[in-house]
Amino acid sequence: MSAALSAADDLATLSLAEAADALARGEVTSLALTEACLARIRRHDKALNSVIWLDEAAALEAAGAADRRRARGEALGPLHGIPMAHKDMYYQAGKPCSCGSAIRRDFRPAYTATVISRLEAAGALTMGGLNMAEFAQNPTGHNRHFGDCQNPWAQGRITGGSSSGSGVAVAAGFSFMALGSDTGGSIRLPASACGVTGLKPTQTRISRHGVMPLSFSCDNVGPLTRTARDCARVMAVLAGHDPKDPTSAREPVPDYEAALDGDLRGLRVGVPQEWFLEEVDADVLRAFEMSLGVLRGRGATVVPVRLAMMREVLTYGAIVSRTEAASIHANWMRDRPGDFAAHISGRLFPGYAVPATYYLEALSRRGPVLRGFARAAFGAVDLLATPAIPCALPSLAETDIDGGDPAALQRFAAVSRNTRPFNYLGLPAISIPCGFDDRGAPVGLQLAGRPFAEARVMQAADAFQRDTDWHSLRPKLA
Amino acid sequence: MSAALSAADDLATLSLAEAADALARGEVTSLALTEACLARIRRHDKALNSVIWLDEAAALEAAGAADRRRARGEALGPLHGIPMAHKDMYYQAGKPCSCGSAIRRDFRPAYTATVISRLEAAGALTMGGLNMAEFAQNPTGHNRHFGDCQNPWAQGRITGGSSSGSGVAVAAGFSFMALGSDTGGSIRLPASACGVTGLKPTQTRISRHGVMPLSFSCDNVGPLTRTARDCARVMAVLAGHDPKDPTSAREPVPDYEAALDGDLRGLRVGVPQEWFLEEVDADVLRAFEMSLGVLRGRGATVVPVRLAMMREVLTYGAIVSRTEAASIHANWMRDRPGDFAAHISGRLFPGYAVPATYYLEALSRRGPVLRGFARAAFGAVDLLATPAIPCALPSLAETDIDGGDPAALQRFAAVSRNTRPFNYLGLPAISIPCGFDDRGAPVGLQLAGRPFAEARVMQAADAFQRDTDWHSLRPKLA
Repeated sequence: MSAALSAADDLATLSLAEAADALARGEVTSLALTEACLARIRRHDKALNSVIWLDEAAALEAAGAADRRRARGEALGPLHGIPMAHKDMYYQAGKPCSCGSAIRRDFRPAYTATVISRLEAAGALTMGGLNMAEFAQNPTGHNRHFGDCQNPWAQGRITGGSSSGSGVAVAAGFSFMALGSDTGGSIRLPASACGVTGLKPTQTRISRHGVMPLSFSCDNVGPLTRTARDCARVMAVLAGHDPKDPTSAREPVPDYEAALDGDLRGLRVGVPQEWFLEEVDADVLRAFEMSLGVLRGRGATVVPVRLAMMREVLTYGAIVSRTEAASIHANWMRDRPGDFAAHISGRLFPGYAVPATYYLEALSRRGPVLRGFARAAFGAVDLLATPAIPCALPSLAETDIDGGDPAALQRFAAVSRNTRPFNYLGLPAISIPCGFDDRGAPVGLQLAGRPFAEARVMQAADAFQRDTDWHSLRPKLA
Repeated sequence: MSAALSAADDLATLSLAEAADALARGEVTSLALTEACLARIRRHDKALNSVIWLDEAAALEAAGAADRRRARGEALGPLHGIPMAHKDMYYQAGKPCSCGSAIRRDFRPAYTATVISRLEAAGALTMGGLNMAEFAQNPTGHNRHFGDCQNPWAQGRITGGSSSGSGVAVAAGFSFMALGSDTGGSIRLPASACGVTGLKPTQTRISRHGVMPLSFSCDNVGPLTRTARDCARVMAVLAGHDPKDPTSAREPVPDYEAALDGDLRGLRVGVPQEWFLEEVDADVLRAFEMSLGVLRGRGATVVPVRLAMMREVLTYGAIVSRTEAASIHANWMRDRPGDFAAHISGRLFPGYAVPATYYLEALSRRGPVLRGFARAAFGAVDLLATPAIPCALPSLAETDIDGGDPAALQRFAAVSRNTRPFNYLGLPAISIPCGFDDRGAPVGLQLAGRPFAEARVMQAADAFQRDTDWHSLRPKLA
């Protein structure tokens, strides 16, 4: 147990791996960890607004039960006794699941998402549901129904979305890990904006059974954590085929944590010459370039890399995700149009005018486009490095598009510029903290890899975090 | 060897199972069988026009090699030495593959379809490619580029399509089996019209790798043969998961031929009260009702059954198949519109105006609609029985829709009325000969079963054929 943990609630700022190891050594109880998280939520979430619902009694009861099981010497999972809260779109039988919307405010699913079942089978506790963009449909964290989520690092700035509450809860010490979901950047953006680590795995790596859908082809489940090691520990539980989700991959799951050796010698990291660095703010670029130095320091070679197929990736990706979102929301857009925020329905409308043959072209070209992109990029390098968010983090006001301000729309779109391409491509990509912009908000480094190369992505992220402390800084909460 | 086989070319009219058994007993050679098929093709195909290309030298060489392997006592597959020809849309590396079109007239694929590889690994020989509707897109057998395929039973009447040449070649003794493909009835219709047996298996039962696509969601590969037993013997080779076609099912493959016990006691056969019998011509209805008597005679109970979801099946099925066909042909429709027959491009055009959200609704409702249909139908019975083609077989002239005659269009659409629904549903269905209409053309009985119930479907068809001889009649060729 670190001597730096003076107050009881500092327990809640341990990394997940530290907390799990301390639990395993008997240095801390699940009850103490859970009480520490709940205490911080009670004290700070009025300002941050990251929690949609909380079942304190159930969490404390589960923590007590976890401690009793440990006391009895029962066999325990790798996440035994760790309290968590997740983006409020993971089904738990009989529990709330608002999906950040008015329409699903009273929805109580009849069954439980496979990922929740897996986390709980590994011993994790679920405390509640976290704020998010309405139906996971913005990159900023605005929410008309539950209130905007607030950035714990920088008052008034966006938290990133759509997994806004997940980014905030992990940054603020409310939860040791939080599931997010990522259709165009929704895990990596809040990770970047809130100074935490967020992994979007390969698109089919984790089961989506029991997860609110937004785009069949581009949705990803993934964790937001404090470190790449935490990510690896959780991925061991989350990854792998699920018979309840026939789209989930049968690819074998490697030992992610064993791969974290800190050694980047021989690793080739590519800096894209197209798209990703064309519109980067100076302070973000400075943090990005310092990051490349850190990777070099661990033995990586950093080289420029030419990309292929970017026009196809962007065009087809927009067609697929817009069309599928429009389809999934078609009945509600017909029956309850007034219950969507304007910036949500406004993004859905164009999806109803796409011809099916365009959609099918976009979908059926996905394999060839991925092959073309991968041949160009990963023929030359092992990982791509880019800023996760290319602009200095804008404010909630600057990106409020409901007023129709074209500049706001431009800033809104810029936020997800660098994350979106990897959703159509289905590739694994992580965002890790790599500094702060000039107005004091975190900056994220995005590392993207080959299909199913999560281990490689996390290994590089972990190596980076051995030489930096951006990920271990916690925001000062009022 | 049957005493009835007087002329050498009568060998070609054996059933596949008889030919394979005679080969296994050493009573006949592959060379003799192949020469018999080729002789009949040479003699009769000028009139029938079922063959697009033929490689006689390669076929005879393969037959000789098969006989030598047998003479050497090598281990042999179940189809060792059996000559076949297939619908001209199965890829064979370096061989022609016209897809019945002008556009692909000179196409030579670089790789071979999994089903062709499997048949050849089981010992079968491939003689050539058979006539078909242009890009498998009509139910009649009209073809502007290679000439219409002619019905060997009834001059001027349609052969059924789109696997027109497959139906004719099996009926006329040109091939012991022929692969067809079925997107709306294209195996069952030529089987019905040509008096042979044709099985459309469950949609994902057989690999589609290397097969010309028409509709990703509704295409099926399947055999046309002389008997249900032949079907079962071939299905043992064709069925089963193929890593090259990720959509192919992993469902275990039962011993289809062992299931053919002739015993229908306890079998419940349902006659649909909706759709399928609403527009049946009197002579077809008479043959159908006699068929039900044959099933009863073997112990089956025949009962009326109420269907559910038929409106959804028909509407969604049309949206899915039209849209996917339009998408697959989009580039050629843009670049070479004049190279499609009018009745093909005319069917493709409406597919370009379907909104993607309609398509996605049709696709995403497929599971619930199948469940609703199956609960209603197969909750009450084991198999559904219907006429395969509900109308007395029309002539090529009566169904020539290029002239714009509305009556022709109506007749054209009526042909596939009873087969189409099972493609959106993905269910297995067979057509077997059950008599003749008043103008002397064959009539087909369609039996459809639960998902992956091919064994049940073939068992009932085989039992029927034990008491009838419609399937063993061969047309008199000039």
